[in-house]
Amino acid sequence: MRRSERISAVTKWLVDRPRQIITLAELGQLLGAAKSTLSEDIAIIRETCERMGLGRVETIPGAAGGVRYVPQLSPAAMRDVVRRLVESLADPDRILPGGFLYMSDIVASPPLLARIGELFATRFSDRDPQAVVTVETRGIPIALMTARMLNVPLAIVRRSSRPSDGTVVTMNYISGSARRIETMSLSRRAIAPGTRVLIIDDFMKAGGTARGLVDLMGEFQAPVVGVGVLIETLEPRQKLVRDYVSLVVLESVEEEERRVRVRASRWFDEPNLDEPGPGERAPARPNAGR
Amino acid sequence: MRRSERISAVTKWLVDRPRQIITLAELGQLLGAAKSTLSEDIAIIRETCERMGLGRVETIPGAAGGVRYVPQLSPAAMRDVVRRLVESLADPDRILPGGFLYMSDIVASPPLLARIGELFATRFSDRDPQAVVTVETRGIPIALMTARMLNVPLAIVRRSSRPSDGTVVTMNYISGSARRIETMSLSRRAIAPGTRVLIIDDFMKAGGTARGLVDLMGEFQAPVVGVGVLIETLEPRQKLVRDYVSLVVLESVEEEERRVRVRASRWFDEPNLDEPGPGERAPARPNAGR
Repeated sequence: MRRSERISAVTKWLVDRPRQIITLAELGQLLGAAKSTLSEDIAIIRETCERMGLGRVETIPGAAGGVRYVPQLSPAAMRDVVRRLVESLADPDRILPGGFLYMSDIVASPPLLARIGELFATRFSDRDPQAVVTVETRGIPIALMTARMLNVPLAIVRRSSRPSDGTVVTMNYISGSARRIETMSLSRRAIAPGTRVLIIDDFMKAGGTARGLVDLMGEFQAPVVGVGVLIETLEPRQKLVRDYVSLVVLESVEEEERRVRVRASRWFDEPNLDEPGPGERAPARPNAGR
Repeated sequence: MRRSERISAVTKWLVDRPRQIITLAELGQLLGAAKSTLSEDIAIIRETCERMGLGRVETIPGAAGGVRYVPQLSPAAMRDVVRRLVESLADPDRILPGGFLYMSDIVASPPLLARIGELFATRFSDRDPQAVVTVETRGIPIALMTARMLNVPLAIVRRSSRPSDGTVVTMNYISGSARRIETMSLSRRAIAPGTRVLIIDDFMKAGGTARGLVDLMGEFQAPVVGVGVLIETLEPRQKLVRDYVSLVVLESVEEEERRVRVRASRWFDEPNLDEPGPGERAPARPNAGR
């Protein structure tokens, strides 16, 4: 096998398996190449990824060591994902009677979901989550893509439990906006005590559901290391969880004027994000003059 | 940029975006390379993927043409995924009171889900589906990974509708095993008339839910081109849908004996699947002597 062929095969293998460690011995068997040759191949892949902002290739030394691909979006790429979201959400055709916003298509688009998953994984990777937790239904696609990029299991909290969930922990909580009593359940087996949990959901108004998930994780003795939501509403400004990250802020849906006011959240609209990532030019910033 | 670096970058780009076409012009801008050079790079990637059974790299000629990566599992790799599923499901620790089986962890493991998605995408790609449809909740992760590998949108049918779903089509159907009347809803916007739909779900007993989904698609004037389920039960043998593909068959859960009888379905346990894929050796087949 030529070097360029080996590099193509190793890149495919790594990118397909985010954060999964593969040993040089395994790669050697797969490709029929010596460890020293493979180490050189991996160095080329690592440098290319780094230079082009395509994520990180990490080599883990030692007997149990190997190599793995860690997805990582550059600040400019993150901002680009958020900009695409803002543009898509601003479409007045989304406005539904009563000022609701149709957004099922956003959690239905695999290419967009893959980028959102990479974004959340990049944002929370330093918190070292060991599981991603979400509540059914619309949070699931986002949570799954985030879990895939972090290579940790996904736990789906349900509104009602089924016999096949086994022993569950069921909790009542107060939805923050409607002040209704709601129920959530999670299988006892889904999260082991001590698991570092990242909560991912699609929408946050007052934050009652997120607060409920945080409390539920308390019942599992599982520390919550982060909360990420796709969209938060501007009002109420006071949310029931403090430490969270949103991608976009929905300011208002004006049914009469057929206008959706939506913008990037403060986490993805800051000047320090303007530094171009490796191999990227700083893109034009249409809202810089605000 | 050296050839090996370009090949690493192009491979990463393609594998990360299943079935998305990227033009040579775009790649050229990204990498600062001439089209002729890139064509040679892509030929190397294509041959490597083909030889090693890592999927297909397709070049689309013409002005709107370009290149794309099509995930494709070899027969041996498909059988390997199914074998892992069977082994995992046979674990007696899954047995719950009442003979139910705990399986939430299966739809919680991103690496396994990615392979299952590749498997379904491979199996149904010749039917050319334009959307994947599932019903909440446990089918969603499998359906999403399948949709990602096919690069088509996902539509999630719900048990009850919310205001943010907009106009919905709601249908009653009879669950095949419990003979209960159940309800399912889908946003009118989710599936356009004429969309070729692939239905994916996690579990099929009598097939009432799958039948309901097929009927619901009829209301959308959307032809169903395939039905894929992760697990089917052996009984009842007569299912309410005819044309479906399952990965494993759950024969029985013996609570007293603490034994789960589960096996590969006939689609993945046939002699003709024993032909090794490109670059693969035929693996040992533990159940060949049955």
